[in-house]
Amino acid sequence: MFYIIGLGLCDEKDITVRGLEAVKSSSRVYLEAYTSILMVQKERLEAFYGKELILADRDMVETESDEILRDADKEDISLLVVGDPFGATTHTDIILRARALGVPTRVVHNASIMNAVGACGLQLYNFGQTVSLVFFTETWKPDSFYDRIKDNADLGLHTLVLLDIKVKEQSEENLARGRKIYEPPRYMSIPQAVSQLLEIEEKRQTGTLAADTTLAIAVSRVGGGEGNERIVAGTLAELAAQTAETFGQPLHSLVIVGKRLHHLEVAYAETFAVSRDSWRGVAQSAYGCALDES
Amino acid sequence: MFYIIGLGLCDEKDITVRGLEAVKSSSRVYLEAYTSILMVQKERLEAFYGKELILADRDMVETESDEILRDADKEDISLLVVGDPFGATTHTDIILRARALGVPTRVVHNASIMNAVGACGLQLYNFGQTVSLVFFTETWKPDSFYDRIKDNADLGLHTLVLLDIKVKEQSEENLARGRKIYEPPRYMSIPQAVSQLLEIEEKRQTGTLAADTTLAIAVSRVGGGEGNERIVAGTLAELAAQTAETFGQPLHSLVIVGKRLHHLEVAYAETFAVSRDSWRGVAQSAYGCALDES
Repeated sequence: MFYIIGLGLCDEKDITVRGLEAVKSSSRVYLEAYTSILMVQKERLEAFYGKELILADRDMVETESDEILRDADKEDISLLVVGDPFGATTHTDIILRARALGVPTRVVHNASIMNAVGACGLQLYNFGQTVSLVFFTETWKPDSFYDRIKDNADLGLHTLVLLDIKVKEQSEENLARGRKIYEPPRYMSIPQAVSQLLEIEEKRQTGTLAADTTLAIAVSRVGGGEGNERIVAGTLAELAAQTAETFGQPLHSLVIVGKRLHHLEVAYAETFAVSRDSWRGVAQSAYGCALDES
Repeated sequence: MFYIIGLGLCDEKDITVRGLEAVKSSSRVYLEAYTSILMVQKERLEAFYGKELILADRDMVETESDEILRDADKEDISLLVVGDPFGATTHTDIILRARALGVPTRVVHNASIMNAVGACGLQLYNFGQTVSLVFFTETWKPDSFYDRIKDNADLGLHTLVLLDIKVKEQSEENLARGRKIYEPPRYMSIPQAVSQLLEIEEKRQTGTLAADTTLAIAVSRVGGGEGNERIVAGTLAELAAQTAETFGQPLHSLVIVGKRLHHLEVAYAETFAVSRDSWRGVAQSAYGCALDES
């Protein structure tokens, strides 16, 4: 059996009992390389499972799937992925390959940011399409995400914005010289994300986003529990003005609040607000939420 | 500590290791009453946890939250919910109450249909807002879901349609006489869902849905593994023509495929198709997907 097992969002204990059993029964266990986006190191996972893990970067999962699937018709083989196997990065290619080889496959689901974002207090029902925001460079500022945020906003819907992660990047010099030396991983911060959003708004001028009247909620390390998970709500300007310490370690995601905002959503997220008064004030004035004066 | 623990989608082994530890450390463990939507019975959960579970129906979670939270400032108390705590039914009320009482709270996330629906092969990125479809009666046919499906469809997005569940219903007679006798649970079937969708299309006539040219994917018991999970893809007419046996036991959900359909999505879902030729044919003719002739 070939297992693709979601690890959930935080640490070694977020695996399900079913997933853990599969790991323990497997003769080879691959860990998809974006371990840096889990909150624990490979070694800690290995100690917990009592198994050695084989690192498989995204390329390997795509191009060496036959090696990963070797003997999976006779033995149990597991591939561990952060979040859910059908989360932001899907694993349909290797599943199709397993099907073609006649290898039985089982997906072990888990939480991913696509559903755990509900922790910010906004109803998942009121989210539109999810978008990804990549690091801008001087010469490359892809902005199709903006159209999607606008589509959602026009319907009054919230937008989950996934922020870029750069791992295994090579400097131009190392790339040119063929040296497999990688830069330290980079994670987009909330202020940088807000800055990029407003840069495109400045260019497009549709009024979809506004520094002082668009509400947003930054979610960091969702599922990490008290003292680790951090949720911060405010206007785009308020979030942009925070220091890196406010949000803490990666990963961060950002939710742009849509106009269909419900007063119960306002109330729930209020405790996360940079400024309670500002949060409630903008919800009333710009979003038309009727709030009682408690 | 007050724990709200997602049980995931299928059976007792879908709880996470973190969740299981919390259950074992808790002096009282509540199980939100919609057990019938999990694929296992309360007794099987109790045997697995080695704990007695206290059934808490939705009313009790809402109106007797202080009893559930009693002593949670001194002991561990757990509330188990199917899926994720912030899935289709959120649990923000009881979390707000815990906050007001100064009770520390931890949410243990898990898979929910909102992310596990990716198992059908459609990219979560391409989903718009999720809708719920309730049982129509002769006199009550709420159809606001249609506007949301249309909003999504106009943007080319897929729509996850959650189908109604009726548990703890009383007959009119038992209700009138104050007898707490409940009807057997009812779960909307895929053919019934399609019939209701097309009934509203017939009334509205916007061309959003069409029996022969709108593709959809029925997902049943997602996460149940091979031999249990069932995914069936086809036109609305093809799905409506299936017998109940095709989809098997509850729960069922339906995905309406949007026009932004990608050829890789077509290829992945093809193995689930009622008719491979029809699936590919409609994807090409009505959705404009360029497929190779393999």
